[in-house]
Amino acid sequence: MGGAGNEEKAVVESREWYLAAHAPEGVPTSDHLKLRTVPLSLCTDLIPDRHLVVQNLLISVDPYHRAQMTGLEDGLYLPQFKLNEVITAITVGRVIRSKDNNYKEGDIVLNLFSPVAEHCVVPSELHIQKVDPTSGVPLPDYLSSIGIPGFAAWVGIEVLGDPKPGSNVFISAAAGAVGMYAGQLAKLRGCRVIGSTGSDEKVKLIKEEFGYDDAFNYNKETDLDAALSKYFPDGIDVYFDNVGGKMLEVALNHVNKHARIPVCGMISQYKEIWTEREGVRNLLNIVGKEVRMEGFMLLSYFNRFGDFTKEMQSYIKEGKISSKLKIYHGIESYLESLGSVFTSSNAGKVVIEVNLHV
Amino acid sequence: MGGAGNEEKAVVESREWYLAAHAPEGVPTSDHLKLRTVPLSLCTDLIPDRHLVVQNLLISVDPYHRAQMTGLEDGLYLPQFKLNEVITAITVGRVIRSKDNNYKEGDIVLNLFSPVAEHCVVPSELHIQKVDPTSGVPLPDYLSSIGIPGFAAWVGIEVLGDPKPGSNVFISAAAGAVGMYAGQLAKLRGCRVIGSTGSDEKVKLIKEEFGYDDAFNYNKETDLDAALSKYFPDGIDVYFDNVGGKMLEVALNHVNKHARIPVCGMISQYKEIWTEREGVRNLLNIVGKEVRMEGFMLLSYFNRFGDFTKEMQSYIKEGKISSKLKIYHGIESYLESLGSVFTSSNAGKVVIEVNLHV
Repeated sequence: MGGAGNEEKAVVESREWYLAAHAPEGVPTSDHLKLRTVPLSLCTDLIPDRHLVVQNLLISVDPYHRAQMTGLEDGLYLPQFKLNEVITAITVGRVIRSKDNNYKEGDIVLNLFSPVAEHCVVPSELHIQKVDPTSGVPLPDYLSSIGIPGFAAWVGIEVLGDPKPGSNVFISAAAGAVGMYAGQLAKLRGCRVIGSTGSDEKVKLIKEEFGYDDAFNYNKETDLDAALSKYFPDGIDVYFDNVGGKMLEVALNHVNKHARIPVCGMISQYKEIWTEREGVRNLLNIVGKEVRMEGFMLLSYFNRFGDFTKEMQSYIKEGKISSKLKIYHGIESYLESLGSVFTSSNAGKVVIEVNLHV
Repeated sequence: MGGAGNEEKAVVESREWYLAAHAPEGVPTSDHLKLRTVPLSLCTDLIPDRHLVVQNLLISVDPYHRAQMTGLEDGLYLPQFKLNEVITAITVGRVIRSKDNNYKEGDIVLNLFSPVAEHCVVPSELHIQKVDPTSGVPLPDYLSSIGIPGFAAWVGIEVLGDPKPGSNVFISAAAGAVGMYAGQLAKLRGCRVIGSTGSDEKVKLIKEEFGYDDAFNYNKETDLDAALSKYFPDGIDVYFDNVGGKMLEVALNHVNKHARIPVCGMISQYKEIWTEREGVRNLLNIVGKEVRMEGFMLLSYFNRFGDFTKEMQSYIKEGKISSKLKIYHGIESYLESLGSVFTSSNAGKVVIEVNLHV
């Protein structure tokens, strides 16, 4: 095995999550996701060219992970995780070995498709970008405000929704990782912004932390239609849809002429195979109200990522954007943290801080 | 009464259709729509300024009429016909009395909101435009190829769908008034065009008269999903939706990335109140495939009507557009002709030729 034995630490025991069984319905359990420990050689000679060994520091936990575990073509068409293979997520990590001259040990990198592992060997030219640790931006923001959730909110509001000052904007899952930024970006455009969310604590959070004009707890509203009549006496101009299903259906009864519905996700619909999902029965409103409904995936908008970063960083510097993070500790918390994303108590962006034991 | 008695014919007996009862479900019957005869004075002194007396020659029979008879907010938000009042439609008529210097007796006019009557008094400045009878365009074309159905097809294909040469285009209700032109316009753009329709005769019509690459009878396909797999091995780039419901749901399982779905109407969905309509369960595809689905009403696009007319007239002159008309005779045929629009045997544009008895 070459001269690897000479290095201080030749092998690290790395824990990683792998898919043990598909979870076509419901939230994955320990039957579907299992943690295992694998030895990983740190011997530079054994690392392929243009590869890095990365120690993950932060792991992003996102609802779309769920859709990668069903084994079904579910409508998001994300790559499915393979049975017995390590699952992937967006991470921030530290380079601890490099076989690429563009990277050196100690570099901090963002990886869009990192193994959910404490350590991993990854190709340096794929889905990796360097993070400047001297920029003053806290590392978790790379997974949140200036990361994927912030970018999703920006594309939905700035590119597709494009509300005018005074427009009536409705955000579902408004305390979620994307929703919290979507509402704040709409407020920065001078809109009237109402959010729906799943608990009274989150209603408070949305109004006090994120500056929404108002918000309601959909679990407490026995008549969602009446709720939207109350909160939108002048109708909805932009509905940023994060949930699909019944909320989309109800919202379609309150849209104004030429309303726009950017659809970022449909978190209420990930759990079931499509023929068992809630049907939306009033799509005829799309004709009469001339609605533009448009789904989006961020990969199609990465040519705008620079514009987004510039705008968002300036908002952050001016103190105009708040973030709510829920930090879990240790890679062993992945299963619990993923489950939490699908509960109505979840608020803000869920991130795992990996315990450092190397 | 002034000197009216001096005129050759002072009063005409005009038959007109009025709404006797709302028809919230199903196709209207003689319980809902009734014909009555009303006397109409032709005495010029009794006609208000800036009004015309028009003798209707052609009446356009369109599926959206149905939505104006329900007494419900149905999703199209068209003005509802009022009980006991004459209903309205698009007509081509001849001016027989004029109290507006811009019009003289004998002028031919298109009226977007004409009473469904043999004769009527209408304001000259509202929804009226003159037709040039020397243009060589047959009068029924003003209700079809260069009228509303042709314009709807043009907006859906040219403005919203915008398919490229070689794109795979799917048209539902493909032998209908709008569908027949949508398919032909897509063919003129060099697309591969497949239509669905409700009878074998119409499949033949679509292929032989309208030049579709292929077509199928949805009543004969026991598995619509399999049918679309067969006709769209490379997926659907543009789906021109005229029907909504199940066909929309199935099409959403076959759309390609960045597909566009201009929605002109949802003829399968007009018959029921919205909570009883077919739900579309797979809207999550809109996210994963980044679909833009957009409803449209023509009033929003009238600034493009000139562009449309120019393009369509040149196609017609070059013999590149075929029309299929179903002509009913006499105003008494309105009820039967409206019912026919909702049968699967209906093909092409339905027009009533009013019997001339003045």
